[in-house]
Amino acid sequence: MAPSHTMAGGESGDSYSQHSTYQRALLEATKEKIDEAITTKLDLYFTSNSFSFNVADFGCSTGPNTFVAVQNIIDAVGHKFQEQTLENPKDVEFQVFFNDHSNNDFNTLFRTLPPTRSYFATAVPGSFFGRVLPKDCLHVGHCSYSLHWLSRVPRGITARDSPAWNKDIHCTGFTKEVADAYLDQFKVDFGGFLSARAQEFVSGGLLMLLGSCLPDGVKMSETMKGILFDCIGSSLNDVAKQGLIDQEKLDSFNMPIYVAQVGEIKDVIEENGCFELEAFEKVSHANDEFPLDAKFLATLHKVTFGGLFESQFGKDAVEKAMGCFEGKVQDSLQELANAKAGMQFFVLLRRK
Amino acid sequence: MAPSHTMAGGESGDSYSQHSTYQRALLEATKEKIDEAITTKLDLYFTSNSFSFNVADFGCSTGPNTFVAVQNIIDAVGHKFQEQTLENPKDVEFQVFFNDHSNNDFNTLFRTLPPTRSYFATAVPGSFFGRVLPKDCLHVGHCSYSLHWLSRVPRGITARDSPAWNKDIHCTGFTKEVADAYLDQFKVDFGGFLSARAQEFVSGGLLMLLGSCLPDGVKMSETMKGILFDCIGSSLNDVAKQGLIDQEKLDSFNMPIYVAQVGEIKDVIEENGCFELEAFEKVSHANDEFPLDAKFLATLHKVTFGGLFESQFGKDAVEKAMGCFEGKVQDSLQELANAKAGMQFFVLLRRK
Repeated sequence: MAPSHTMAGGESGDSYSQHSTYQRALLEATKEKIDEAITTKLDLYFTSNSFSFNVADFGCSTGPNTFVAVQNIIDAVGHKFQEQTLENPKDVEFQVFFNDHSNNDFNTLFRTLPPTRSYFATAVPGSFFGRVLPKDCLHVGHCSYSLHWLSRVPRGITARDSPAWNKDIHCTGFTKEVADAYLDQFKVDFGGFLSARAQEFVSGGLLMLLGSCLPDGVKMSETMKGILFDCIGSSLNDVAKQGLIDQEKLDSFNMPIYVAQVGEIKDVIEENGCFELEAFEKVSHANDEFPLDAKFLATLHKVTFGGLFESQFGKDAVEKAMGCFEGKVQDSLQELANAKAGMQFFVLLRRK
Repeated sequence: MAPSHTMAGGESGDSYSQHSTYQRALLEATKEKIDEAITTKLDLYFTSNSFSFNVADFGCSTGPNTFVAVQNIIDAVGHKFQEQTLENPKDVEFQVFFNDHSNNDFNTLFRTLPPTRSYFATAVPGSFFGRVLPKDCLHVGHCSYSLHWLSRVPRGITARDSPAWNKDIHCTGFTKEVADAYLDQFKVDFGGFLSARAQEFVSGGLLMLLGSCLPDGVKMSETMKGILFDCIGSSLNDVAKQGLIDQEKLDSFNMPIYVAQVGEIKDVIEENGCFELEAFEKVSHANDEFPLDAKFLATLHKVTFGGLFESQFGKDAVEKAMGCFEGKVQDSLQELANAKAGMQFFVLLRRK
C-alpha cells in the first residue's frame, strides 16, 4: 500500500493550520492568475448538462488555505457567470470536493469551514494518484503544494547493494542513478495523477497546479529547500550517532519527495496527452524563497515533515533532531542566502 | 443555531461503532425490502443524464451500519442494471454521500471504509434539516434511525410558566400541550427534511426511511422506549437530589426527540407533497423490541444519548445517572415485558 503523508492535524500551535502562511502567500500571489485563467480559458457551455458547478481541491489538508483557494475559484466563476448572463448566477450551485488521504484530519476541516460559504462542501478521502471521483463530474480542479509528494520511495535507492543506493534522505541531484530513480517515480505518480483527473474532468475543465519546482539544470541541493533537507539529514545523523536512531535504518531512509525541474513537469504533461498546457508561469510573491529565520524554518519543516519522520524514528528522536536542525540552519544562513533560486509555479491545464 | 447530536465517536468499547447492533438488526431485516423497492420502483432511465449513480445516507454516524446500508442499495441497483442491460453495468460508477452533522467523527468513518467498496466515498457535513447537496443530484437516499431527532427542543416546553411546560425529559404523550408542542416541532423538522431532499433528488429518485415510530393511539410512555426514557429521567432526578445536577436545569431539560405515530408521519409526507408514498411497512426483526437485559440497555442508551446528557449535566453526573439507570431497568423488567409494542418502520418515497 502506498504511504500516505498528511500534515499535522488539529488547530493547536504545532498544527499545519497554524503554520501554512508560506503556502498562503503563494495562494494570494496566484489569485490574479486564477481569475485570469477562469476569465479567459473557462467555457461555461459545458456546465449546461450539470446542475452544479463542481470544484475540487486535491491534497487539501485541514485548511484554511484550501478555503481561500476554492473561494478564489468560486468568486471568479461566479463573476464569469454574471458577465456572460448565460443564466441567473443565483441559480448556479457550487459543490466543492475537498480531497486528501483518508487519514487527513477532515474533522478539523469540517469544524473550520467558513460559515458563510456559498457552496456545498464534501470531503473525498483517498490518494489522488488514483481515481477519487466519478467520471466527467469536475469543472475546475486545484492542487497546491502537493505534487512533490511521491506515492512511494523510488525502487532501488534504499538498498545498500543497489547502484542507486542513496545515503542522503532526499534527491540531492548529484548522483545520476538516484536522480533517475526519483524522476522515474515522479513520472509514474504525476502521470497517474493526470490520468485519474482526465477521467474525472469534463472536457474543457480547468486544472490548476501550484507548487515548487526547479529551473532546468538546477540541482535540488543547490537551492534553499535542498540545503534545508541536507540540514535535516545531518541532524538525524547526529541523533543516530547518539544512539537514538538506528544508523542502518537512517541510511536506508529516503523522503518520498521529488522537486521536479520545469522541463520534467512539461514532459509528463505532454506524454500523458489528456490536457492542453495553457500556461506554465513562474509565480513571484512577497517571500519568494523561505525567509532566513532559523526558528521559522524549523517550525515549518517540523509541521510539514515531522509526521513522516516520527513514523520512522519515533517522537523523541525527531524532537531532538529538529532541535539540532534549528542550530544547523542558524549556521547555514550565509549558504542559504547564496543558494540558487528555486521556482514557484502556476500551471494551467485544460482537459481536451 | 440548531443543536447537533452525534453518536459517540471512535472505535473504543464505549463508541457507537461498537454498540449499534440493534440498529444493524433492523438494517438486515430491511435488506429484502430495499431489494424489492429498487427492483420494482426504481426507473433507471433517469440516470442517463448522469455519469454516476448517486446514493446518500443521511445521519450516517461513524459506521459500520451505514456501510451495510449503502452496500445493500448498490448491490440491488447493480443487479437491476445488469438485468435491464441498459448499459454495461461495469460502466456505472457509484458515488456515495455520507451525511451527518459537521461534528460527527468522519475521521473514523473514513478510516473504517470497506477497503473493497465499489463506490466513490464522500462525506457531507451539515444538518439534514436543510440542504446539504446540490439540486437534482441524488438517485437513492437512505435515512435510518435519525428522524426522531428534532432540530431543537420544542418552544414553550422548557419554561415553568408556560402551559406546555414539561417536567419530564421527553414527550411521554400524556399531556396534550406537551404532545402538541413536540408534534409541531416534528412537523417543521420532518417537513424541512423532505423539502430539502425534494430539491436534491432527481425526479423518480427513491428515498428510504427506517426507524422507530408508534402505532396510532399508543403513547410513548406506554412503550419500552418510553419506560426506558422515564427511567433515565428518574435516574437524573436521583443524581440531582444528591446535588450533582442543578434541579432547576433538569426540570427545564427536554430531549429533542420525538417518536411519531404512523398517522403523523404520513400526514407530513402528504402535506409536503413532493414525494409519492410508495410503501409504509412494519418491519419485524429478531429482537423486535429491545432485549430485556439491563446491562445491554444501559450501554446502548449511554452510547446513543450520553453525549447529549453530558453536554448538559457534565460527565461525572451522567456516569452516576447511567449507573442508577441500570438498576432501575433491572427493577422495571416486568413493566418492560408488559409494555405496549412500538413499531419499526420502512417507508419508501418516490420523488414526483
